[in-house]
Amino acid sequence: MIVFDRKLDVARGRIDLSHGAGGRATTRLAHDIFYPAFANDLLAAGNDQAVFASPAARLAMSTDSYVVSPLFFPGGDIGALAVNGTINDLAMGGAQPLYLSASFIIEEGFPFADLRLIAESMGAAARAAGAMIVTGDTKVVERGKADGVFITTTGVGAVAPEVELSGERARPGDCVILSGGLGEHGVAVMIARQNLGFGAGIASDCAALHELTASMIAVAGPSIRLMRDPTRGGLAATLNEIAQQSQVGFKISEAEIPVKPAVAAVCELLGLDPLNVANEGKLVAIVDPVAAPALIEAMRAHPLGQDAAAIGTVIEDRHRYVQMETKFGGRRIVDWLSGEQLPRIC
Amino acid sequence: MIVFDRKLDVARGRIDLSHGAGGRATTRLAHDIFYPAFANDLLAAGNDQAVFASPAARLAMSTDSYVVSPLFFPGGDIGALAVNGTINDLAMGGAQPLYLSASFIIEEGFPFADLRLIAESMGAAARAAGAMIVTGDTKVVERGKADGVFITTTGVGAVAPEVELSGERARPGDCVILSGGLGEHGVAVMIARQNLGFGAGIASDCAALHELTASMIAVAGPSIRLMRDPTRGGLAATLNEIAQQSQVGFKISEAEIPVKPAVAAVCELLGLDPLNVANEGKLVAIVDPVAAPALIEAMRAHPLGQDAAAIGTVIEDRHRYVQMETKFGGRRIVDWLSGEQLPRIC
Repeated sequence: MIVFDRKLDVARGRIDLSHGAGGRATTRLAHDIFYPAFANDLLAAGNDQAVFASPAARLAMSTDSYVVSPLFFPGGDIGALAVNGTINDLAMGGAQPLYLSASFIIEEGFPFADLRLIAESMGAAARAAGAMIVTGDTKVVERGKADGVFITTTGVGAVAPEVELSGERARPGDCVILSGGLGEHGVAVMIARQNLGFGAGIASDCAALHELTASMIAVAGPSIRLMRDPTRGGLAATLNEIAQQSQVGFKISEAEIPVKPAVAAVCELLGLDPLNVANEGKLVAIVDPVAAPALIEAMRAHPLGQDAAAIGTVIEDRHRYVQMETKFGGRRIVDWLSGEQLPRIC
Repeated sequence: MIVFDRKLDVARGRIDLSHGAGGRATTRLAHDIFYPAFANDLLAAGNDQAVFASPAARLAMSTDSYVVSPLFFPGGDIGALAVNGTINDLAMGGAQPLYLSASFIIEEGFPFADLRLIAESMGAAARAAGAMIVTGDTKVVERGKADGVFITTTGVGAVAPEVELSGERARPGDCVILSGGLGEHGVAVMIARQNLGFGAGIASDCAALHELTASMIAVAGPSIRLMRDPTRGGLAATLNEIAQQSQVGFKISEAEIPVKPAVAAVCELLGLDPLNVANEGKLVAIVDPVAAPALIEAMRAHPLGQDAAAIGTVIEDRHRYVQMETKFGGRRIVDWLSGEQLPRIC
C-alpha cells in the first residue's frame, strides 16, 4: 500500500515492466534515482509538469514518451496520443498549450506511409488545440532495436494567473471530481492489440483537455487544489499518488464512478479493473467542496465533461489509503498495481 | 549534392538508417513528412531550435533523443550527451539554458546501477550549466524492443536580446569560424563500440557550449549570422545544410581545419573522413568578416574555443556546393553523406 516500503536495490536490481507502469515502482524509481541525481525542488514536487516563473507570466513545461502498441487503435494513434497527452499534462497544471517539441525514435524499416499518418495526426491535434510543434528530432535505430516508432513530446504553456495547482494541495474535506467514464483508452488499445472479436464500438477517449480545464478555471480557479489525468495506472494510481503527495486518504464511491457498460463488460471478460485502466481524455480534480456543484455544472456543459461526477472525498488517513464503498455496500482498499497490467498502453 | 533531387516515395518507401543520419535523407524526410504535417513557420525555418517571443524575453526550446551505443564511452555517456547536446542546441540559438525535461525509454532488464550512473551524469551536467531538469517521464518496453536506454531531452532557454541567429542568414563574404578540432566524439564512440586496441587517449569532446557562445555574443552579438554545432553528419552536413538554407556556397580550406593528430590517424585507419564525423563540443559560427578577428580572439580565451580558427568563406553559388581546398592545393566538393557512416553516434 505505502510507496516507501522497500528501498530500491540500486546496485543489483534491474528495470522491469513495473517501473514504467506509473504506479509504485515508478515512484520508487524516481525517488531513488532521478530525484537525487537531478536534485531540484521543481522536479521533486512530483507533479506531471513543472511550473516556473517567467518575467511576465508563468510557463508550464511537460514531456512524455509514447511507446503504445499497436500504433493505431480505435479512437486514435500514437501521434494524437503524443500531442494530446502532453497538452493534458500542461492543462493539469492550469496551462494553455503554446509550443510543443516532438522527437522520434524510429526502427529501421518503418513505413513512410505510417509515419506520415502519425505526423499528420500530430499536426491536426496540435492545430486543434491552438498549439504548434516548433522543434523536433529524428533518430533511427537498427531493426530489432526499437519497436516501430517511439515519440517524445514536450510542451510549454502559459499558466492561468488565478490558479495554484500541485499534488500536495489536497486536504481533508475536499471533493473529488471525475470528468467522465473510465477505461476507454486502455480497453480500446487492448482490443486492437489482441485482435479481439468483441468490444466493437469502444474507442479510446484520447482528447485534449485544455478547453475543459479553462472553463473549470473560469468558474472555480482558486478553489481547485489540483487536477490530474488518470493515464497509466488509471484512477487507482492517480489517487494513490495524490494521497502520498498530500498525506491524506480518499473515500470514493463505486456507484458514482462512471464506466460505460460496454467498457465494464470487456473489463469483466478480460479480468481488468476499470480503476486500473488508462484513460487519455479524463481528469480528476480535487476541489474545495463549496465550489464543487458549480464546477460540475460547468464541466457538464463541455462535451469532454458531460459525465462529470463527484466520486468521493479527501479524508484524513495516516495510512494514505484509497477506500472505496462498493456497489454492494461493502468497502475495499483500492491499491495501485505493483506490477504491470497493460504494458505499452501509451 | 542537392537536397531536392528526389521526392520521398511516401506510399511505398521505408525508413532506413540514413533518415536518422542528419544528412540529406533526414532533411528530405522533414521536408516531405513533418513540415507539411506540422505546418508552421517556426518549424519550417529548419533550425535546430525554435525561437519565439514571450511577454518579456525571447525563449528558445529544443529537443533531441539520444540512442548512442555504447551508453558509456571515453569522455562521456548518454546522460552527459543528452544534457549537453540539448544545451548546445539552445546555445546555438543564442540562448542560455534554463529548464530541461528528460524522458527515458528503457528496455526491460536494464540495470539500475547503470541508470543511476546516467542520471547522475545528467544532473551533474545540468548543474554545471546552471540549468535544471524540471520534468520527465519513464517508459519501459519489453526486452528486445529497445536497446538499453533511449533518452529524450528538451530545453527552454532565454535568448540574448542582441542576437538574431538563423540558418538562412549566411551571406556571401561571411567568415566561417570553427571552434576547435573535429571528430573526437565520433571516433571515441567508435573505438568504444568496436573495442579497438588503438586510439588510446582519444575522448569525446562532449561539453556544453553556452558559456563560449555567451562570450561570443558579448564581443560580436549583432555580427553573428548563425551558429550551429556539427553533431551527426559532422562539419560536412552542417555546412551543406546552411548552404541550402541560405542559398549560398562555401569555400573552406583543409589546412585551416583543426583535427588532432591522434584523431586524424584513427580516421585514416578506419577510412573515415573527419569532416563527416560527429562532434559534441564544437560549433561553427558564420559571421560578418569585420567582426571575425575579435571574435576568434574571444573564443580562444575560452577553454572550449582555444583552437578556434577561420576555416573559410561563404560564397555565391547557385549549386550550393561546399568546396574545399585540400592541403595539397587541389579542390574537392565536400558532400554530405547520403547514407549512414556511424549509426547510433548520439
